[in-house]
Amino acid sequence: MRLATIRTATGLRAVRLDGDTAVETGETDVRTLLERPDWAEHAAAAGGPVHDASTLDLAPLVPSPEKILCIGLNYRDHVLEMGNELPEYPTIFGKFAPALIGARDEIELPSQSDRVDYEAELTVVIGQSVRHADAESARAAIAGYTVLNDVSMRDYQRRTKQFLQGKTWEHSTPLGPELVTPDELPADPADGGALRIRSELSGEIMQDSTTDQLVFGVVDLIVYLSTILTLNPGDVIATGTPGGVGDARTPPRYLTDGAEIVTSVEGIGECRNVARSLQ
Amino acid sequence: MRLATIRTATGLRAVRLDGDTAVETGETDVRTLLERPDWAEHAAAAGGPVHDASTLDLAPLVPSPEKILCIGLNYRDHVLEMGNELPEYPTIFGKFAPALIGARDEIELPSQSDRVDYEAELTVVIGQSVRHADAESARAAIAGYTVLNDVSMRDYQRRTKQFLQGKTWEHSTPLGPELVTPDELPADPADGGALRIRSELSGEIMQDSTTDQLVFGVVDLIVYLSTILTLNPGDVIATGTPGGVGDARTPPRYLTDGAEIVTSVEGIGECRNVARSLQ
Repeated sequence: MRLATIRTATGLRAVRLDGDTAVETGETDVRTLLERPDWAEHAAAAGGPVHDASTLDLAPLVPSPEKILCIGLNYRDHVLEMGNELPEYPTIFGKFAPALIGARDEIELPSQSDRVDYEAELTVVIGQSVRHADAESARAAIAGYTVLNDVSMRDYQRRTKQFLQGKTWEHSTPLGPELVTPDELPADPADGGALRIRSELSGEIMQDSTTDQLVFGVVDLIVYLSTILTLNPGDVIATGTPGGVGDARTPPRYLTDGAEIVTSVEGIGECRNVARSLQ
Repeated sequence: MRLATIRTATGLRAVRLDGDTAVETGETDVRTLLERPDWAEHAAAAGGPVHDASTLDLAPLVPSPEKILCIGLNYRDHVLEMGNELPEYPTIFGKFAPALIGARDEIELPSQSDRVDYEAELTVVIGQSVRHADAESARAAIAGYTVLNDVSMRDYQRRTKQFLQGKTWEHSTPLGPELVTPDELPADPADGGALRIRSELSGEIMQDSTTDQLVFGVVDLIVYLSTILTLNPGDVIATGTPGGVGDARTPPRYLTDGAEIVTSVEGIGECRNVARSLQ
């Protein structure tokens, strides 16, 4: 099953995507939908108003998650190519919900930063509350997967040791296009499955790896994070990005006005966003 | 004016505190109250059900802020005594709302950490949305002040370079007891005013400084943060802690089962919390 949150003339709507059509489920967004214990059956059976899937106005997949948890330094190939050792613990930082935009929205380029970078990330969406998860309950807590482009203002990110101020700029971070349940995917990341993950900047491939390179896999991350706090429906876990980001290139490559950045994960879909300077 | 969020048999309520009594304003919590453009007049005029102020069950002052922004390394005396230079930029990290507890609630001590520390912090609560603030609009965006005890699991905080995993444990972080408007205070932190800030662990003074030691004052912080994102009503900015935290002591001092930690700011009030090991 594939789910999305769309903007309509009368507000946000959660929809189930059936090929060429999108069917409203009755909830305003995917978080509200996932908060129903019967969300999977309910969404599968829903028969609300129908939209043409080719003309959808995509909102952030989860417009207001309680938590957006991001993982750093989590691709084995990238860590090793940089000459670093594999980490003992996951690096965790956050974003706040106002950073999010839809999968086709413009990324706001603030005048204060000229080092705006992209990061394609396989992203877990939680479908069931879980604390102190073991591997089995961690797996059961996964509603499905999506894509997050962890857009980062590198100059602000490096002003201090804490990343947050480079990571949570308003209207910077595409999330979507869809939540895809594990059964729809060619390989399940919860089994260490290899899905191709890529980013493409104005037509040029920038990142190209596979999700079996994750140091901490999605089940491990849920176990670890749920030691600290309860993960709740609609929570977003962005699992980190592979090598090839713009800031690490020679010469560096950043998002500039009018550039199109496409971040994709095989079997899930892509965020395709134009960067736009604020006036 | 003094405002709080209390738990009642029928749910949360925002109240105005009038000496010995607390008067309901009609909103469920202080965030909902602050989202009214007329919150100050509305709260001043409110005349709902009355409670005995000595028996209130205090919820987190703002139970579900959109954002909890925390500042590190921000007390001049502490930075200099540690032999460090004053920072050029504020260090910013986040917490998520499920970390919060009320000003008299028990702090949950998880079995996974034996280095749970306290940090008394002067805390700003936003009363009006602001982006790209100048000094004047930053000042106007302040609803008032409260106290946050930025309880920190130091072992988790130091597992990686990013603090978040030591900072956002569930039910760890007292916020309250009250929001106090600037006119009620003996000195206004927005003018660099000196309010005494202290923490006391099981009767022993651990931190004792004044808020004029802030490197980045509250107006500076709002200007800086609002460059990155819109600050909204109910948002919480914890401005950092002075020297004397338990982890920096010889020998170190941590929160243990049954210990009482009191964090206070002059003119505002205190969080008084017993630490309790989870079974």
